Amino acid sequence: MGLPRRHTLIGSAAIAAAAALPAAAQAPAPAPAPAQAPGYYRFRVGGWLVTMVHDGFFRRPLEGFVRNAPLAEVQALMAEHFQPTDHIQVPFTVTFAQRGEVLAVFDAGNGVTPAGATAGRMIANMAAAGIDPARVTHVIHSHFHGDHINGLLNAEGGAAFPNAQVLVPAPEWAWWTDEGNQSRTPEGQRPTFANVARRFAPYQGRVTPFTPGAEVIAGIASLPAHGHTPGHTVLRLHDGAEQLLFLGDLTNRPEAMMRRPEWQIIFDFDGDAAAATRRRILEMAASERVRVSGYHFPFPANGFVAREGNGFRFVPAEWSSVV
Amino acid sequence: MGLPRRHTLIGSAAIAAAAALPAAAQAPAPAPAPAQAPGYYRFRVGGWLVTMVHDGFFRRPLEGFVRNAPLAEVQALMAEHFQPTDHIQVPFTVTFAQRGEVLAVFDAGNGVTPAGATAGRMIANMAAAGIDPARVTHVIHSHFHGDHINGLLNAEGGAAFPNAQVLVPAPEWAWWTDEGNQSRTPEGQRPTFANVARRFAPYQGRVTPFTPGAEVIAGIASLPAHGHTPGHTVLRLHDGAEQLLFLGDLTNRPEAMMRRPEWQIIFDFDGDAAAATRRRILEMAASERVRVSGYHFPFPANGFVAREGNGFRFVPAEWSSVV
Repeated sequence: MGLPRRHTLIGSAAIAAAAALPAAAQAPAPAPAPAQAPGYYRFRVGGWLVTMVHDGFFRRPLEGFVRNAPLAEVQALMAEHFQPTDHIQVPFTVTFAQRGEVLAVFDAGNGVTPAGATAGRMIANMAAAGIDPARVTHVIHSHFHGDHINGLLNAEGGAAFPNAQVLVPAPEWAWWTDEGNQSRTPEGQRPTFANVARRFAPYQGRVTPFTPGAEVIAGIASLPAHGHTPGHTVLRLHDGAEQLLFLGDLTNRPEAMMRRPEWQIIFDFDGDAAAATRRRILEMAASERVRVSGYHFPFPANGFVAREGNGFRFVPAEWSSVV
Repeated sequence: MGLPRRHTLIGSAAIAAAAALPAAAQAPAPAPAPAQAPGYYRFRVGGWLVTMVHDGFFRRPLEGFVRNAPLAEVQALMAEHFQPTDHIQVPFTVTFAQRGEVLAVFDAGNGVTPAGATAGRMIANMAAAGIDPARVTHVIHSHFHGDHINGLLNAEGGAAFPNAQVLVPAPEWAWWTDEGNQSRTPEGQRPTFANVARRFAPYQGRVTPFTPGAEVIAGIASLPAHGHTPGHTVLRLHDGAEQLLFLGDLTNRPEAMMRRPEWQIIFDFDGDAAAATRRRILEMAASERVRVSGYHFPFPANGFVAREGNGFRFVPAEWSSVV
């Protein structure tokens, strides 16, 4: 159409001039292409420039996701947050931190995915953000689940970050590089042993374990946070009083796991330990009002933890056009 | 640096190979430019393609912003949402809706602003989103405050949307085009009379008032929502069961005005009416669980209204890489 039809308008006679057709009515415009905005977002933490890079999402049935709560209870909480109740959409967002000559990335994304996959957007979004994988100096891992390490490989099976040191939590490395732990690992997680061997292979001689609790590199500390996996680790980017806690998989979607930190999910290695760790670190984040990012938080995955009821709530930080 | 120093690492002796300098350590990478991602976001409402376009923000002191609550109470609520307590940052996000040959925009942004201004990003963000102002077929106004109409003019003072019909709430048009209403208008809002004359001047013969409550054009309805201004109007984009309520300035920042719908702000024309209208329409939005956008919501200003306590809470919708 291009012009409102007379009968749909109830106009003030003094002003309306529906006869004056605008040029657009004669030459209808082609529709703009429905491309989504690139999935990155920047902010500063002291002297660090942080770039959150979206890696898409995956979906799985909501049923079976939480192991220790009835489905109806999980559905009710998701509905309260206007989330779907038949499936859960799990987003991926990767945290990059740059200062001086250091360009660190916390976890490596899903990497190369089949055509049509909803995950695996990180490479394109890094390009949009002007981040060249060859310039990454450090890949620092929270843990070794596939969605966090698969992106170590490029399409040719080589190192996606050809010039990076890879820094890994020592207990995580120790567990998944020892096949003797297979029998003590939940069956669903056993493919991780082979996947770890494959994904780290091109980085031989460049993988350095660190002890959770240690300063990993100057300005990036670590906190032990095991449970979700044997060596799951939280990272703390800091510069003076400014800091950002990268929570990794301390929670999956915060709408569920911050509100109900005692919930254990299908991907937890040790559900009881995961829940205890979750509450301990969320308590700290809420008390200190510290900025947090999380791998499965809604993009741009940048915000704060507030107390609510017997649990917590994720409060997204302001989106600002100014970095 | 580029490589973690030995003394900052507590490595497993079996793996660490700190002597193997990665290439990046020899040739430090230049820092990526700290450009922010373009401020637009797309989603669908039935057959409508919606693009939210950010227009930056402005700041004013928090003191004096809410007229009928003590500053300390306002500060406490803002702090609860991890917002500043010395000033309020008011973002601007403009809603575009496109279907077939119609490309409508709800309000017109701040337009051309002085160099260095934090508002006035819409033109650049429209370009990033591939939206040509010449292709806009309809500018539909919620009300006539400057941040909503100034963008009607381009840098030369001509029509920024050269081919658009301009559709305006009849009571808003009637009020601000009659200088006889000056004395019945709060002093701070009196410059609006001259500004309306100036901003609509290039659109002579293309301005069409509509009665709030009417279908404005096919698929875009309106709801009377006066109080914030004499003719403030909410717009309802719809296609079958799918809909989006564009709330305009029904609330300013939702962290304040959804939680405390009875609060009246310095920009309200009739604070009592604004508060009553606010509660009525938020009740409807919460009951119907309808998607909403708002001019001063945090970008991308797309979400839902949930009940909380004696008020409401804004729940941002999922950010999705898939449109």
